[in-house]
Order: sequence, then structure tokens, then C-alpha cells
Amino acid sequence: MPSQTQIGLMSHEELQTEHQRQAANYEQLKTEKLTLDLTRGKPSPEQLDLSNALLTLPGADDWSDGSGTDCRNYGGLTGLPELRAIFGDLLGIPASNLLAAGNASLEIMHDLVVYSLLHGTVDSPRPWAQEPLVRFLCPVPGYDRHFAITESFGIEMIPVAMHPDGPDMAEVTRLVAQDPQIKGLWAVPNYSNPTGAVYSEDVVRQLASMPTAAPDFRLFWDNAYAVHPLVGETAPSYDVLGMAAEAGHPHRPFVFASTSKITFAGAGVSFFGSSTANLQWYQGHFGKKSIGPDKLNQLRHLRFFGDADGVRAHMEKHRELLAPKFALVLRILEERLGSSKVASWTEPKGGYFISLDVLEGTARRVIALAKDAGIALTAAGSAFPHRIDPEDRNIRIAPSYPSSDELEKAMNGLATCVLLAATEHQLAK
Amino acid sequence: MPSQTQIGLMSHEELQTEHQRQAANYEQLKTEKLTLDLTRGKPSPEQLDLSNALLTLPGADDWSDGSGTDCRNYGGLTGLPELRAIFGDLLGIPASNLLAAGNASLEIMHDLVVYSLLHGTVDSPRPWAQEPLVRFLCPVPGYDRHFAITESFGIEMIPVAMHPDGPDMAEVTRLVAQDPQIKGLWAVPNYSNPTGAVYSEDVVRQLASMPTAAPDFRLFWDNAYAVHPLVGETAPSYDVLGMAAEAGHPHRPFVFASTSKITFAGAGVSFFGSSTANLQWYQGHFGKKSIGPDKLNQLRHLRFFGDADGVRAHMEKHRELLAPKFALVLRILEERLGSSKVASWTEPKGGYFISLDVLEGTARRVIALAKDAGIALTAAGSAFPHRIDPEDRNIRIAPSYPSSDELEKAMNGLATCVLLAATEHQLAK
Repeated sequence: MPSQTQIGLMSHEELQTEHQRQAANYEQLKTEKLTLDLTRGKPSPEQLDLSNALLTLPGADDWSDGSGTDCRNYGGLTGLPELRAIFGDLLGIPASNLLAAGNASLEIMHDLVVYSLLHGTVDSPRPWAQEPLVRFLCPVPGYDRHFAITESFGIEMIPVAMHPDGPDMAEVTRLVAQDPQIKGLWAVPNYSNPTGAVYSEDVVRQLASMPTAAPDFRLFWDNAYAVHPLVGETAPSYDVLGMAAEAGHPHRPFVFASTSKITFAGAGVSFFGSSTANLQWYQGHFGKKSIGPDKLNQLRHLRFFGDADGVRAHMEKHRELLAPKFALVLRILEERLGSSKVASWTEPKGGYFISLDVLEGTARRVIALAKDAGIALTAAGSAFPHRIDPEDRNIRIAPSYPSSDELEKAMNGLATCVLLAATEHQLAK
Repeated sequence: MPSQTQIGLMSHEELQTEHQRQAANYEQLKTEKLTLDLTRGKPSPEQLDLSNALLTLPGADDWSDGSGTDCRNYGGLTGLPELRAIFGDLLGIPASNLLAAGNASLEIMHDLVVYSLLHGTVDSPRPWAQEPLVRFLCPVPGYDRHFAITESFGIEMIPVAMHPDGPDMAEVTRLVAQDPQIKGLWAVPNYSNPTGAVYSEDVVRQLASMPTAAPDFRLFWDNAYAVHPLVGETAPSYDVLGMAAEAGHPHRPFVFASTSKITFAGAGVSFFGSSTANLQWYQGHFGKKSIGPDKLNQLRHLRFFGDADGVRAHMEKHRELLAPKFALVLRILEERLGSSKVASWTEPKGGYFISLDVLEGTARRVIALAKDAGIALTAAGSAFPHRIDPEDRNIRIAPSYPSSDELEKAMNGLATCVLLAATEHQLAK
């Protein structure tokens, strides 16, 4: 039952009719008693199955890496050299500037903020905790877990608009040039969470080279989806470390990646790339809390992948499972919401999310309606600092986990909620 | 070539003769060109072999725990319930008050200090970082990595003497009663690092119940060697959480354990036990940096152990490998240093270390002599805050890693260095 007319152009009478139609659809939806979940970017069981070989690796007689290290014993803060080489290749970072670490790159990001607060970075005039105020730039919509870290330490978050080629650089360069309290920017450069935006080479170069009032400004460069294309070629991971060094800011980028959405989510390996001085600084502090990462899990991954082409081939299999789900979501959005003009959405070429913008002032209502119909969506405002979406319009859709059948039901249900909330909203004007 | 006489009772002439004898022994030792390492408490390859079944676990079709959780996917901050039950049994902690976590309990200890500094504990009047000063009591000799954490945050460390049944409680109770800046005490209650001391039930009860000027005083209770007996029965893990709750201080103990010295060092599972409020507080902060621990590694351990008796049976095999090495060290210490009266040492009933006290003022020299002879020992003063052993006499011996042959050579070499340094020191008087 697609809407045939732009809701904004309807007469009051047409609007009432349309509202009744959507209300009836919604009542029908509720009778289906769905329990569907589009909240988080979790891999599906079929995706996880792709990595089941890991369940018996590294294998009965295999515990030494290529340098002869016994991965069963203590030691080694840098991680396995061979695994660092593979991901260095994929990320465009020399292996010597890339650490292989524990099961969550989020932990590294968090700890870098902690060390910066309590000790200061290699070029901080003082620990950030001794600053009157610390600010971070937050391209929005963005990743809720990034914002939760800065929020938890009372760091002030300044939203900056996100464009298809990266954050609004006029705004970013203006702000960082004048405000020495701006110490960082959260970035997901490739297939950004949740819009799917890919930072252009020009944006990356500007971020790497722009003058900043803070001498210790940091790009928190979360390249979580570096090898996660859905459509077409893999977007290049630009050499942000090299660009920054060339521009005289070698310590600016903190680069992150992980295998959480390559192998097993939460049981993978994370990576941290940065300047040699930054890595030494990090290890100096990290060495106080750890004798080293789980090297056996790194060996397991090394044996599983073999080399960088092994990772790429593996990601093709993910793409085969994920791309149809994204196509399905986009098809239903177009069919159900295309003509009504009450919503717009991104068409990502990679990553894990689709960002849906509904009629201003209705996102909260849409999510509540969906919840009552058994469709769980990420909480309203999640993609914004302090969970405040000033226009109350953004909804993050995570298509990966549900089956295609469930996804189709969930998306049709969501479309009904979007239309119902839109007609309600227009009638209340 | 045992010394037959107490060095302290020798005439100057006898001392010169003895010195020449030990100097000759030392020259002989250097010709052996040893490269032996007694520095760290690392399991030996034979000990690691005991857990090789883990290298192919959890197995090709095994990824769900007893509650149906897919351990390959995100989620779950508390860890696997079945594994928590096993270690709850071993540690005497209800599973509901015990989290199963990542690969290093040291990380949890570190992060608890960070959260206390930046946020304050559940009963802190203010974040510790806003206190004029924070102090910790440090029983000495103690664990260098504990002291490194408090040192790294500028926390003042007050040494307290360690007795065979725990820290000097007269001193501890006096200090904590009067000084509200004392916020914590580092403890290894069972088979303490490095003396092997076992806290008595009376000491545990006093620590759990003593009045403290700080409302948010914490016992950092690192029960790293709970199931690691060498001789006789396993020392009981007293219910410090229950005792503290009974005394009206439910949030006082932070209890830690790990499988690092049970299965694979650095690729194991850690545990954190505390009051319900403390665990909620911890997870509230930890949830900002992690989506959860590596559940597959927890499942691997669950399958490997089966139950608490499985852990106990496994530890018997460790004991069979470790006990002869400890006996060897004690035999050589007695043979070579027993009559000279220039050294005393502990005879631990469990754990990973023997604490050797040499003639006052000579530990640094002994360690330097040993190093020049190819025998690596933990740096002088390591078991003391800021690595300062005020009497310059303590040396930590870690017998686990070397083979028995190597250990015998290393201990004989060390004994020679102890005697040479002692005669040097006496002659210089």
C-alpha cells in the first residue's frame, strides 16, 4: 500500500484519509506481534559461520609465530608482527606503526582519552584534566559509542554537520583554528556510522594538515569499515598518518581498526596505528595495566587469514550476505516512502548502517510506534552527542543481523510507523 | 663448596680467605657463559603444554554456552555464567558477584583506579583525583606491577611490613583509622608475591572489618594464586566479601583472579568479584569502553575445565612440575647459604616465588654480579614502592620458567654471588 502523494501537499481531507489508512495499517502491524531488532550493527549468524574455522585454530601443535614467540606465554605489547603486516597492508600503515591488540578497538580509544586526561599526550602542554575545559568535534550523525566515551569524562561535544564526503570542513577548520580547547575529532572515515559517508582524499588531507589552536589536537580515526564494501570498489584508506606527518603534525592521527566485523564480534583482534612517539607513549601507559594482548587469538587470526588477500576474499563472502539486505532495505524505503516525501535516506556503498531521516519532529514518535509494534530501533537521538537530535528526525537502521524475511517485515513495519507519525504530525499543525 | 662458617663471625683473615674463595668461584662461574633468567613468574613450556587442548577448543560446532548465548557475537558484560560459577566455587564468591572478563586481571585493577580517580567509587565523597592526595598501603615486599599502577597516577605508597600471616595489622589498623587519604591497600592474600605468605583468617577479618577514616577505603584483593598450592593442602580463600559485608563495609573488597597461571599466560580469563553495587558501578564505566569480553575464550576455558574439580585436577599437574623446582631452589639455598648466615629466605607453600633476603646493603651488588655472570634476576628493589628497598637486601626468585638443570646452575651461581657480595661487604667495613 504505497503512499501515492506527497504528504506535505495534501489537503486536510486527504491527510485525514491518509492518516486513517496508516492507522489501520499500524493496527494490522500490531496484530502480527513481531519481535524484530534493528538496533545494533551485529553480524548475522550466517556471517559468523564464515569464520567457524577459527573455532579449532590455531591447532593442536601450533603456538609459535614466525619469529618463534611462544604465543601461550606472557609478553609482547606490540602484537604479532605477521598479523600487523597483514593489516598494515590493508590500512596503508607501515607494520612498525601498527599495534595488534585486544578484542576491542573501543578500549584503545577510551584508554587514549584516559591517558590524555591523566598524563597528557606527547605534545600536550599539560594533562587534559588540568585544562579548564576539553572539547571534541563530533560529526553528526555519528557513532553513539564514540560520543559515550567523551560524554563520560565531561568532555564538551560540538556537533558538526556530516556531508557525503566527510564533515563540514569550513566549520571544522574555522573551529579548530580559533579554539585551543578543541583537542579531538571523532571520525569514521570509510563508510561512516551511520550515514555510510566516505571521507574524500581532499577532506582527509585538510584534516591532516589544517592549523589547530591546540598543539595536541588529535584525529580519533576509527577505520572500522576499511575492508567492508557493499557496492563497487573498496574505498581507499587514505594515508592520514603520512599526510599529517608531511604537514608537520605527525602525532595528530590515532588510527583504529578491528576484526570485530570481519571474524567474530567481540572475539577478534583490534589495531592501533600512529606515530612512533605516540605508540611509545601509549605502550608506556598501557604497559602499566597489561603484560600484553592475547597472542593466541592473534595467531588464530593469522592462520585463518594467511595474508591480506585472505582478508579481502573473506570480506567478499560478507558482502554476498550483506549486500542483498541493504538492497532490500533501500527497495522498501523507496517503495513505501519514495513518493510521500516525508523521509530521505543514505545509500551507503559499504559499512553496516543506513541513516534514515524522517519528517522533522517525528523520529522519537516513529521509534515509539515501532517499539509498540515489536520492532526495536536504536534509541532516538543515538547518533548525536548526549542523544539529542535537535531536529528529532534521524533513525539509524542496522540491516545486518535479521534474516531477509525478518528484515522485510521490520522495514515494512517501520515505513508504516514513519507514515503514521508524519500524518499525525501534519494533522496536529 | 659450601661455606662452613658464619661469615659474620669470621676473623679478618678468615674473611679474606673466604672472599678469595668466592671470587675464584665467581670467575669460574663467568667462564660458564650462562644465559639464565629468574626474573618473572612465567609458566614453563611444560606447564603450558598441560593446556594444549585449548588450542583446538571450543571445537568446530561449539559456540553456544548453556544459556544459548552465541559466543561469536557481541554482548554480555558479565561473562559466561557457567564459567563464573566454576570460579565462584573456587574463590568462595557467589557467581552473581563475580564477573568473567578479559585476558588480564591487572587491567581491571588499573581501570578501577582510573574510575575511582575520575569518577569516584560508589561511596566516595568526590573523585579521588579531586582529593588533595591519595595514599595506598603497600605490604612489602610485594608485587611490582601493583605498585607500578599506583605510582603511575602519583598515588603515594606507604610501605607496611609483611609477616608470614599477612601485613603488620597493628600498623595497618593504626594508619587507616587516622588518615582519610588512605584509599586502598594492595593485597595478594594467598601465597603472596613474593614471600608466599598466606593471610590468616584473623588478618582477613581485621582487614574486612577495621574502621577506616576514608569512607571509600578499598582492599585490592588479588587472589592470583588461589588454586596454586605447592606443598600440602590448598590454603582457604576466606570470604572477604562476606566478612566485609557483615562488618558494614560491603563495598570494601575488590577481588581479582585469573587463569594466567592456570592455562595460558596472557591468553586466559580474568575474574572480578565485588558487591553488587560495585559491579554495577564498574560495568557502568567499563560499558563505555567495551561491548564485552572475549566470550569464545571463556567458552574454550569452560569446555577445558568442565567444573571446579577439573580446575583442581589441572592444578595438581602444575604442582607436579613446580614443586620439585621449588624444592631444588630451597635445597641449594640451604646447602650453599645455610651455614654462612648471610641470607634468609621464605619457604612458600604455594604461588610462584621465593623471597630471598641477603646481607643488608648487598642485594644490588648481588644482582649486578649475577647479571655479569649471565643470570638475570628481577631488578633490585622491584618488590618495593618506587623500586626502593630501604635495606637493599631483597631478591625475588622465580623458579617456574627454567628447566631444573638451568635452575640448579642459576641458583648455584646466585649463591656464589651472594657469598662474594657478603665477603666484599664485610671486608669493606
